[in-house]
Amino acid sequence: MLKTGERLDDLELKGLKIIQNPSYFCFGIDAVLLSSYAVVRKKDRVVDLGTGTGIIPLLVYGKYEPKDIVGVEIQKDVADMARRSVELNGLSEKITIFEGDIKDCYNYIGINEYDVVISNPPYKKGKSGILNMSDTKAISRHEILINIDELCFSASRLLKGGGRFYMIHRPERLKDIIIALNNNKFTPKRIRFVHPKVNKAPTMVLIEAVKCGGDFLKIEEPLYVYNEDGTYTQEILNIYGRC
Amino acid sequence: MLKTGERLDDLELKGLKIIQNPSYFCFGIDAVLLSSYAVVRKKDRVVDLGTGTGIIPLLVYGKYEPKDIVGVEIQKDVADMARRSVELNGLSEKITIFEGDIKDCYNYIGINEYDVVISNPPYKKGKSGILNMSDTKAISRHEILINIDELCFSASRLLKGGGRFYMIHRPERLKDIIIALNNNKFTPKRIRFVHPKVNKAPTMVLIEAVKCGGDFLKIEEPLYVYNEDGTYTQEILNIYGRC
Repeated sequence: MLKTGERLDDLELKGLKIIQNPSYFCFGIDAVLLSSYAVVRKKDRVVDLGTGTGIIPLLVYGKYEPKDIVGVEIQKDVADMARRSVELNGLSEKITIFEGDIKDCYNYIGINEYDVVISNPPYKKGKSGILNMSDTKAISRHEILINIDELCFSASRLLKGGGRFYMIHRPERLKDIIIALNNNKFTPKRIRFVHPKVNKAPTMVLIEAVKCGGDFLKIEEPLYVYNEDGTYTQEILNIYGRC
Repeated sequence: MLKTGERLDDLELKGLKIIQNPSYFCFGIDAVLLSSYAVVRKKDRVVDLGTGTGIIPLLVYGKYEPKDIVGVEIQKDVADMARRSVELNGLSEKITIFEGDIKDCYNYIGINEYDVVISNPPYKKGKSGILNMSDTKAISRHEILINIDELCFSASRLLKGGGRFYMIHRPERLKDIIIALNNNKFTPKRIRFVHPKVNKAPTMVLIEAVKCGGDFLKIEEPLYVYNEDGTYTQEILNIYGRC
């Protein structure tokens, strides 16, 4: 099932494995934190927007066993890797990889049908400094094919009223995120900043927003990645242990 | 100069003193943190919206000695206390207390004229649970006479392009604040959360926004008030030492 350059990695979660190609990209701590932050129930129908190699559907299925998960990925080669990982894990009944555009995927996979949308989108604003617009890494990291507004619009179309949208992003995009959520019927309910250490500025932010949700926002306690001595904090060890 | 129920408190900053009445309210750590967070230069013209007893003009003058400061306060008795404190400190040439409404003060004190606007506004949304709408404490704590939108509108009218707006507020109002800033030509540039302790959710948030500013937001390192053993952190001691 592996093609040239690909490797098989063990997720250390219920025997799940993932196909990755280091020359494209490999999943990082952001996917792990986001999967852990999301609240997903067994009866939930879930979409992951920009699923890449399918890491979030695999982690979310491994942790929560929801009813079903659709991973949306526009890049053909990457979607193919995700689909092969799903087959390899025997999860084709539970996880579907939809090869298509986040911007109009709701026309194909369903409007107002989902309980949870998750996304680890491209973080970087605009297209500056990119040499090759079709480069897989660039598409995953820069807002070439999708921006925050378009992402929130699609998430809102996919979700039922009361449905939950989980995102991880860069803290410097917080203003853009809050405005885009507000423009697309979402209320941010929980925000948690991820700091490398106790006295450092955050480098990531986790967000839970609810479609047509009531108006109360909780900024949560910080999540610290490293102790002062450079070892992982207990909370990070717990998250990795659970995932 | 003191009326019944009032007392004179030493600010431990260049000999400055303030008249307070404990049955109204006394200034808290929020005023001290906000004065320390603001960047104020000697050539700056400054407005403090909702100045109360004038604590922020006094602290800001004591720290930074800007060109002049106007404190806007709608409550007659409170504005009178602030004015007497200014006189007592011999600062009537530098600090003016304007008794009037934040909502239209720019018509009287000047449009597009100021470099810095500071505000420690009422934190609580709406008027629920308030028995007496004319109660001094209620007016200072609840959005009875001014809400975040109206506050940002007035701050924007007062400031020059590139002028800086500093606010301290509750973290749960962050969405409302970001949207109100965005609706009134402001870009948030720095946000700093204030946490009681390292592993606690923040209880206050400090914000710097710039009128017609460029689009880069920095979420800063957390500000912790107490060490694990309940003593003040070194940063808080430094802030109090400087104020």
